[in-house]
Amino acid sequence: MGHGPMLRKEDARFVRGRGRFVDDVRLPGMLHGAILRSPHAHARILSVDVSAAESHPKVRAVITGETLAGRGLAWMPTLSHDVAAVLATDKVRYQGQEVVFVVAEDRYAARDALSLIEVEYEPLPPVIDARRALDPDAPVIRDDLDGRADNHVFDWESGDAAATDAVFASAERVSTCDLLYPRVHPAPLETCGIVADLDRITGKLTVHATTQAPHTHRMLYALIAGIPEHKIRIIAPDIGGGFGNKVGMYPGYLCSVVGSVLTGAPVKWTEDRSENLMSSSFARDYHMHGEIAATKDGRILGLRVRVLADHGAFNGTAQPSKFPAGFFHVFTGSYDVKAAHCRVTGVYTNKAPGGVAYACSFRITEASYLVERMVDVLSHDLGLDPAAVRMANLLRPEQFPYACATGWEYDSGDYPRTLTLALEMAGYDELRREQAERRAAYEATGRGSLMGIGISFFTEAVGAGPRRTMDILGLGMADGAELRVHPTGTAVLRVSCMSQGQGHETTFAQIVGEELGISPDDVELVQGDTDQTPFGLGTYGSRSTPVSGAAAVMVARKVRERARIVAAAMLEVAPEDLEWHKGRWQVAGDPAAGRTIAQIALAAHSDLDLPDGVEGHLDATCVYNPPNLTFPFGAYICVVDVDPGTGQATVRRFVAVDDCGVRINPMIVEGQVHGGLADGVGMALMELMAFDDDGNHLGASFMDYLLPTSMECPSWELGETVTPSPHHPIGAKGVGESATVGSPAAVVNAVLDAIGVRHADMPLTPAQVWRAVQGRPIRPDLAIR
Amino acid sequence: MGHGPMLRKEDARFVRGRGRFVDDVRLPGMLHGAILRSPHAHARILSVDVSAAESHPKVRAVITGETLAGRGLAWMPTLSHDVAAVLATDKVRYQGQEVVFVVAEDRYAARDALSLIEVEYEPLPPVIDARRALDPDAPVIRDDLDGRADNHVFDWESGDAAATDAVFASAERVSTCDLLYPRVHPAPLETCGIVADLDRITGKLTVHATTQAPHTHRMLYALIAGIPEHKIRIIAPDIGGGFGNKVGMYPGYLCSVVGSVLTGAPVKWTEDRSENLMSSSFARDYHMHGEIAATKDGRILGLRVRVLADHGAFNGTAQPSKFPAGFFHVFTGSYDVKAAHCRVTGVYTNKAPGGVAYACSFRITEASYLVERMVDVLSHDLGLDPAAVRMANLLRPEQFPYACATGWEYDSGDYPRTLTLALEMAGYDELRREQAERRAAYEATGRGSLMGIGISFFTEAVGAGPRRTMDILGLGMADGAELRVHPTGTAVLRVSCMSQGQGHETTFAQIVGEELGISPDDVELVQGDTDQTPFGLGTYGSRSTPVSGAAAVMVARKVRERARIVAAAMLEVAPEDLEWHKGRWQVAGDPAAGRTIAQIALAAHSDLDLPDGVEGHLDATCVYNPPNLTFPFGAYICVVDVDPGTGQATVRRFVAVDDCGVRINPMIVEGQVHGGLADGVGMALMELMAFDDDGNHLGASFMDYLLPTSMECPSWELGETVTPSPHHPIGAKGVGESATVGSPAAVVNAVLDAIGVRHADMPLTPAQVWRAVQGRPIRPDLAIR
Repeated sequence: MGHGPMLRKEDARFVRGRGRFVDDVRLPGMLHGAILRSPHAHARILSVDVSAAESHPKVRAVITGETLAGRGLAWMPTLSHDVAAVLATDKVRYQGQEVVFVVAEDRYAARDALSLIEVEYEPLPPVIDARRALDPDAPVIRDDLDGRADNHVFDWESGDAAATDAVFASAERVSTCDLLYPRVHPAPLETCGIVADLDRITGKLTVHATTQAPHTHRMLYALIAGIPEHKIRIIAPDIGGGFGNKVGMYPGYLCSVVGSVLTGAPVKWTEDRSENLMSSSFARDYHMHGEIAATKDGRILGLRVRVLADHGAFNGTAQPSKFPAGFFHVFTGSYDVKAAHCRVTGVYTNKAPGGVAYACSFRITEASYLVERMVDVLSHDLGLDPAAVRMANLLRPEQFPYACATGWEYDSGDYPRTLTLALEMAGYDELRREQAERRAAYEATGRGSLMGIGISFFTEAVGAGPRRTMDILGLGMADGAELRVHPTGTAVLRVSCMSQGQGHETTFAQIVGEELGISPDDVELVQGDTDQTPFGLGTYGSRSTPVSGAAAVMVARKVRERARIVAAAMLEVAPEDLEWHKGRWQVAGDPAAGRTIAQIALAAHSDLDLPDGVEGHLDATCVYNPPNLTFPFGAYICVVDVDPGTGQATVRRFVAVDDCGVRINPMIVEGQVHGGLADGVGMALMELMAFDDDGNHLGASFMDYLLPTSMECPSWELGETVTPSPHHPIGAKGVGESATVGSPAAVVNAVLDAIGVRHADMPLTPAQVWRAVQGRPIRPDLAIR
Repeated sequence: MGHGPMLRKEDARFVRGRGRFVDDVRLPGMLHGAILRSPHAHARILSVDVSAAESHPKVRAVITGETLAGRGLAWMPTLSHDVAAVLATDKVRYQGQEVVFVVAEDRYAARDALSLIEVEYEPLPPVIDARRALDPDAPVIRDDLDGRADNHVFDWESGDAAATDAVFASAERVSTCDLLYPRVHPAPLETCGIVADLDRITGKLTVHATTQAPHTHRMLYALIAGIPEHKIRIIAPDIGGGFGNKVGMYPGYLCSVVGSVLTGAPVKWTEDRSENLMSSSFARDYHMHGEIAATKDGRILGLRVRVLADHGAFNGTAQPSKFPAGFFHVFTGSYDVKAAHCRVTGVYTNKAPGGVAYACSFRITEASYLVERMVDVLSHDLGLDPAAVRMANLLRPEQFPYACATGWEYDSGDYPRTLTLALEMAGYDELRREQAERRAAYEATGRGSLMGIGISFFTEAVGAGPRRTMDILGLGMADGAELRVHPTGTAVLRVSCMSQGQGHETTFAQIVGEELGISPDDVELVQGDTDQTPFGLGTYGSRSTPVSGAAAVMVARKVRERARIVAAAMLEVAPEDLEWHKGRWQVAGDPAAGRTIAQIALAAHSDLDLPDGVEGHLDATCVYNPPNLTFPFGAYICVVDVDPGTGQATVRRFVAVDDCGVRINPMIVEGQVHGGLADGVGMALMELMAFDDDGNHLGASFMDYLLPTSMECPSWELGETVTPSPHHPIGAKGVGESATVGSPAAVVNAVLDAIGVRHADMPLTPAQVWRAVQGRPIRPDLAIR
């Protein structure tokens, strides 16, 4: 009835162009906002003159930092317990920072009016290179914060430093490497946008916004703007991709709300592409120094990491406070390495707010890239086959549940089986033979291309999260689900998570269909509307299936148990005489006597006499508070061809074996993996947010910030193993970010394997590969000139 | 915190003209429907030519009975297990019946196109007088129904005929009277309307409609049109009065849905006033022959009633099948009369569908009018004071719960106390003295006016209803409620009932506020949207407080109990150590240690460790299935001045003492009573839907169908007694229709008391009063010529 491959229900509207996104929302009398942004990375604001803009005949409101300051709204709190500017008052701190918000009768007038605003700046020296941020003579960026005399944000460490040092002191072999995970951008197809509508009569604020976390946004508006929570409705309509870009709160959102308050009309604000790429939340920007200790035959003994994290000028509003380095906890990856320690130091720089999500958020991607690169560096240094080194060090099935060096408990896995399957699918030995032949031919003739084989084995940690593990705003991470079965037997499920393209309407209908024995077509999902859905923390970190999915299973089982009581009354037996069989309750020993959910639903709404204390109808609510994260994992093998003459690397094959536990809709799982693999190709080979020495942004269009297309992707070869999560009610684990986490290292390992270079930083553009071949790769975070 | 007088929250928007009614809904690309109606009361349709209308450049669809017949939709089921025409195919059966539905780009074009349609009719003799409907030579109206050779709809009886006959045979005194409760109309300020929008891509039908029963409408669309129930969303926005007019399904609704299916665009249809008065559901039209048996000193011994009920050409879609005479069960009123019997015979006539609701529906109003008129007739015949006769026969407090002659069990009451209070408030004895003086003066001079004093004591039966008592569509009458408390301590309540002006947003917020110790301002009510609210049977028959109100109380108490567990965890005590005191859970014996709901709500969403098996958040659902009806009651005293020369009757004073159990918001209760008293003045003195012999409707505008205004109403004098319902969780009973039920008899009794006439039928227009003074009142259901 439920699980299995099934075409996505939502595609009926998406493929016909009938999705309804925020920018499709048009309300009567709606006004339009536009933002004047800073041209400087760091400058003092001497004056802001908006008088000419205010005189524009179509302008209805001009909002400056001073306007907001008068309402106590010039700064907004972040989850890091500091603040971020809404509109600049004292200084601008990155190029593209919001300075003035204009509300006008149409979008063109709003943009035109921006050019009428005069802002006088006194430029200040910017801090662009994170490695210079803590220099004693570095300009202090956050002089707005009390007592802040430098650019230090936090220090965070994990693991046992002394034990790790001891292992390193006695190890046969220590390999070290400096690694950069450059600043990249989630770059969703749809940019951020909002329509804010404060009804002056009812006091109700209705917000249509592209948010992955409607309920947290509701709470943020309540806390920031002082509007009572029950007077706020957040509607996230169809969303054209999130990838973490749509978790946080942006100045344009708050300014639109203020604009609606000031004008009494709905205010729409939609980013253009350049604004999205310049100023909405970035990811990565992690400077890592890795050290790996091992025996001379490749048994890993310890791992030690020092990280410098570039947070930009502000902590992203969704950067959690008690968790500054996020899921970097899993930096020992998929290996049995008990002696491990990491220290992360965060710094402010004159760049847009960073440190937040891009699938996968909160540093798992960086951690996975680090350890998978270090294993290859170690293999390179020892002259060992990287597949063999991995196989020798992978966690063994009997070690689960496994507490890693930082104390997190991996739930389940059979890693060797997964790697073995990937190697078999790839034909690993044959690939190595072919590689050797190709290299020999190249060396003999000086012509042709080189071939590289890269492996990555990753462990994800998703489904945030258990109480006290992920503490955000003092909130727990429990998510609700509500299910009603109508009198005619169709159902509606309400969940707190919000799809940004993951196919929730299909997956959740399948979950309920499976549990109730009805067709997924008979289940409607409601999501993305705080007036309708129960509280929950939103969709990010692959939470939907592990958390909301579990809530959906459990609420369906509650309904099934209520149905059992009704069925017992219908059949005039005791509930314990019934058994659930093939989608209906039937009398044990009398299969002819049974009732389907549809039959039971009609009776539950009818005049049936139910036992005392049993209410009618067929509905239930559930709040699921996960006891642990779930840990999907996988083995990826990438095969590239590299032209040493031009530096051009081409991904020829990509084998991806994912284990995300039980798959509800394998077709959707594969789609998710396809997307993440493309992410990895992009990050490994082309994506980079670069800045010049003055802090000028060099990647504010898709002409400069390159994304992979189908032309850069091979035909993916997917495999699967299934290790159910022992604590999820149907053993599912979540898969939304797995491929993004796992694939970059496989591609980078393959390219470096092809050219025989120990390390070079991403992105491995043709220029970077060519330089690496010449023995002088560059640091890609520095300006490209 | 909760109960008490409080200004209505919804009035903030209503008094500013910011309510949002169906006709305010404008959707992109919306089309407009108009209906061609029959000019004949009874005619065969020979041909329908819509070709010219279809050629109109702005017409997008023309729907005839044949169009619908091709989809199996020409007839719709009624709750009486027969069918009603959607668009006429074979015959038209009343003037104003729907024949063709035109969909055009604007409302003007749609109306214009109606005049291009040619319908050829063969007129048939109509049946207008219900007393002629069963004549052997009467034309058969419903020849569409299999085997129907006459105009008989049903026979229904209640009570013990033999025992009643025996009492009558030996009674000292029997008084008889023929009474008509004429056909009247609910006449809400807002007429019926709909915007139907079937999304061809998603298959979802969204209906904005002025309906008192959104969930039943959803089910009806599912059953009639075959659209899956989870693909239908009914939204009832603000509603400008219902009074029963907005319970049923109308042809314009179904045609709008079909119009949307055919055009792929939203279709709006809004009745004009004339259409609403001509063709939407009527009430009353009850021809009653009453007999009352008594001792010579006025002790009532028995009641015997024969009724002829005029149902019009179709049973209204909301006329329940197993319950054809509805709440006429309570025809013995407020008196201890065990020997009673009634028989009701329903007939079809060539009038618009009737037999349905107008507060109060289902025949309580007729029953109450009957018994209160019969008591006055008996008093007149015996020469006794009608107040004394009532006091002698009222049920005594010790008789509750009281099973009336038909078996229904009245829940609670102290009737003598209530009547005594009304008599005191009126100054009854002084009024009688004044009346005698005025009559003496009139008789002496032949000038001046006469004064009349009318009393009515009524018992309502509301809050449908217990299973097996009210069986509609095989459904029970349970209603759901859902409550969520947000992290910041404000709350949202979802209920299945739907306000049409009764102030639910305020009353329900007060209910929750009272139970949770929070301000009603912090509680938001969600109603009137099937996608959001739990299943329930809707708002009619004063159900909201007795049923949904009870559900709201109980769901709030569930939340309070969940809060107790959370509070116990916060305070590190056992839940049983806590007591609920002044809006918070506090440790017994340690009042300083306590937590409010707001504090508990934040903790429930936080990382607090809860006991195993206790879910987080703070929400609950409840389904309330009432164990019995509730029985509000009241004593009304009307004082009129009548000019015998012109027949003009003026209501000078009106004392109304209502007992509706516990009052949540006394201000809203009084507002409800005010409205119902005005209803009674209208029905008693002016309202009448009249027809000529050809079935032409003579009341299709407010120039002809007269409604009372403030000019016809006195300053109401209200009093209260409080007898809680023993089975409602807070002892409330419901009051929406009480005054409509109780007031007409008081006004009629007063007017007839003034002129000393035993009986004359409503409406007591000046002409009718003048004729009554002359000793020859007419039957007002006949044509007024």
